[in-house]
Amino acid sequence: MTKLTTVQLKAPYLILIGDITDATYAKTGLGIVQWQSDRVAGQLRFAGCEVELGVPDMSVAEAVKAGVKSLIIGVAPIGGEVPDSWWASIEEAARAGMDIVCGLHIKLADFPAVVAAAEASGARLIDVRSPPANLPVGTGIKRSGKRVLMVGTDCAIGKKYSALALHQSMREAGMNSTFRATGQTGIMLAGEGLPIDAVVADFIAGAAEVISPDNDDDHWDVIEGQGSLFHPGYSGVSLGLLHGSQPDGFVLCHDATRKVLSGWEHFDLPTIQDCIDQHVVMGQRTNPAIRCVGISVNTSKLPAQERADYLARLSEETGLPCVDPLIDGCGAIVEYIKQVYL
Amino acid sequence: MTKLTTVQLKAPYLILIGDITDATYAKTGLGIVQWQSDRVAGQLRFAGCEVELGVPDMSVAEAVKAGVKSLIIGVAPIGGEVPDSWWASIEEAARAGMDIVCGLHIKLADFPAVVAAAEASGARLIDVRSPPANLPVGTGIKRSGKRVLMVGTDCAIGKKYSALALHQSMREAGMNSTFRATGQTGIMLAGEGLPIDAVVADFIAGAAEVISPDNDDDHWDVIEGQGSLFHPGYSGVSLGLLHGSQPDGFVLCHDATRKVLSGWEHFDLPTIQDCIDQHVVMGQRTNPAIRCVGISVNTSKLPAQERADYLARLSEETGLPCVDPLIDGCGAIVEYIKQVYL
Repeated sequence: MTKLTTVQLKAPYLILIGDITDATYAKTGLGIVQWQSDRVAGQLRFAGCEVELGVPDMSVAEAVKAGVKSLIIGVAPIGGEVPDSWWASIEEAARAGMDIVCGLHIKLADFPAVVAAAEASGARLIDVRSPPANLPVGTGIKRSGKRVLMVGTDCAIGKKYSALALHQSMREAGMNSTFRATGQTGIMLAGEGLPIDAVVADFIAGAAEVISPDNDDDHWDVIEGQGSLFHPGYSGVSLGLLHGSQPDGFVLCHDATRKVLSGWEHFDLPTIQDCIDQHVVMGQRTNPAIRCVGISVNTSKLPAQERADYLARLSEETGLPCVDPLIDGCGAIVEYIKQVYL
Repeated sequence: MTKLTTVQLKAPYLILIGDITDATYAKTGLGIVQWQSDRVAGQLRFAGCEVELGVPDMSVAEAVKAGVKSLIIGVAPIGGEVPDSWWASIEEAARAGMDIVCGLHIKLADFPAVVAAAEASGARLIDVRSPPANLPVGTGIKRSGKRVLMVGTDCAIGKKYSALALHQSMREAGMNSTFRATGQTGIMLAGEGLPIDAVVADFIAGAAEVISPDNDDDHWDVIEGQGSLFHPGYSGVSLGLLHGSQPDGFVLCHDATRKVLSGWEHFDLPTIQDCIDQHVVMGQRTNPAIRCVGISVNTSKLPAQERADYLARLSEETGLPCVDPLIDGCGAIVEYIKQVYL
């Protein structure tokens, strides 16, 4: 039986965002601050960095004095590498005894100076994006229990946030649910999961099947999504996750003002209706009853007085509950799920 | 610049198919015998094996006497592992100085007895399914030259054979084409390629972009397909390959008598029309002009007198050239491509 990746991180954390210029790629750091701010002591930024996690700036030396236990690499750039100029700080933290936590495609063990520093101090090097061995190939055989998968019109568009918010709203409504992490930040938050985009391509759907195993009939797995079916770089991950998750329902995640793919500006975002339709058509292969159960929209860049109108109009057009989870929570989606399935 | 995987195998070959019971999984061995029979000395089968490559049976000792230079593991089982009982023969061949060639997900280097035997004799251990390092993420940016991708209603349904046959027909018609291998057998035959199903999931489309780079306007890459968009285990590989290949045309590969997925008998095959339609809809994301340019059908299990009728009826229904490449070649598809694109 394949086991999920498990991690147990020691708080408090210092979150490294270095000198990134686009907040989209600080999503690991932002996710941890949003959901576990009580575990975060500060952020480590280099001169001129204008991205901001909303926690105190702190050098490695200051973090040592403040009792920080882990340095988390808080970014997820395209391709998953760390800029060369960051390694001196990572090595300094490891030498000072902080665990180094990395969710990128690189492996900390491949950086000898960091390995040596960690060995000398007793710090741990924790690669969160290491899939377990012996993953199975997906079977597509129907599993018991219910599943809802986050999907998106783009990457970095709120799928993880929406999953956590929906899980929270389900719990508040007295439902039996589990958040299922499929990416590095989700795994850091949940303490377990499986980094679906880091598995060997033949095993994507099989890994997704491991993530949401058989369960009680009234149990809901709330599955973090990855990528987008319409993304020229990452669509394979998204389709394998869709087929392997065999979701009963999916929540479409969107940004109200995004017109082109983030970092792939030569591609328009798909329309919401196309996105819903294609997920239904493709998802029916492993769950004929699949349907969209709500739309989760980041409306933060809309003028405040336009947000409610935007969501109301979208809800009228689609016949689905439409929420900004940061403002409204996901109660409306939970109500819709209860009406459809209970 | 990422380089393709290259292999240079020494003939003659002994092909190991052991005791498999389903010819579908001997596709590596069958492919080599079909396309490079002059390089094959024999097959190594265990007692009771009824699968047959159509070449002489040969033990390792007999192969040594016959001057065999390489033992090729000729099977591709689900999940990509070798049965425990086969390793003694592999070790014996390595000890006798034969190169061991493996296209599975396992790595020969992980089997100490084989490594020791090869070191002692000077034999090479060649893992064909090892993707190159530093693969890029797919960009979706339009490349020059033309591309035709094989797709299928199922796995193991003739995609590699169709690509090789179409490439051959294009050459005979005086066109400028290259066969692009995406799987282990194709790489063994072509001497280079990239095992698309063995790359890390985030890099599937990027790997596909490396496989068919910019080229002359009149050049055709004939790209071996993998899996199926409708396969519950492997669809992620297929969609990433589709998006990364940005094909101008695709050839749909099918088996006239197959009703359910091979090895996944709880799934019906998709209909040919659904399969064409979904590839067009999804493929338009990276090539808006994508279209189906032909259907390649394995009719070997139809009664001989029904074959022509079957293909004629299918051609009438779809308006596309329909061939059994083993019987008819792919000339009709080449003619259609010339009409559409030249």
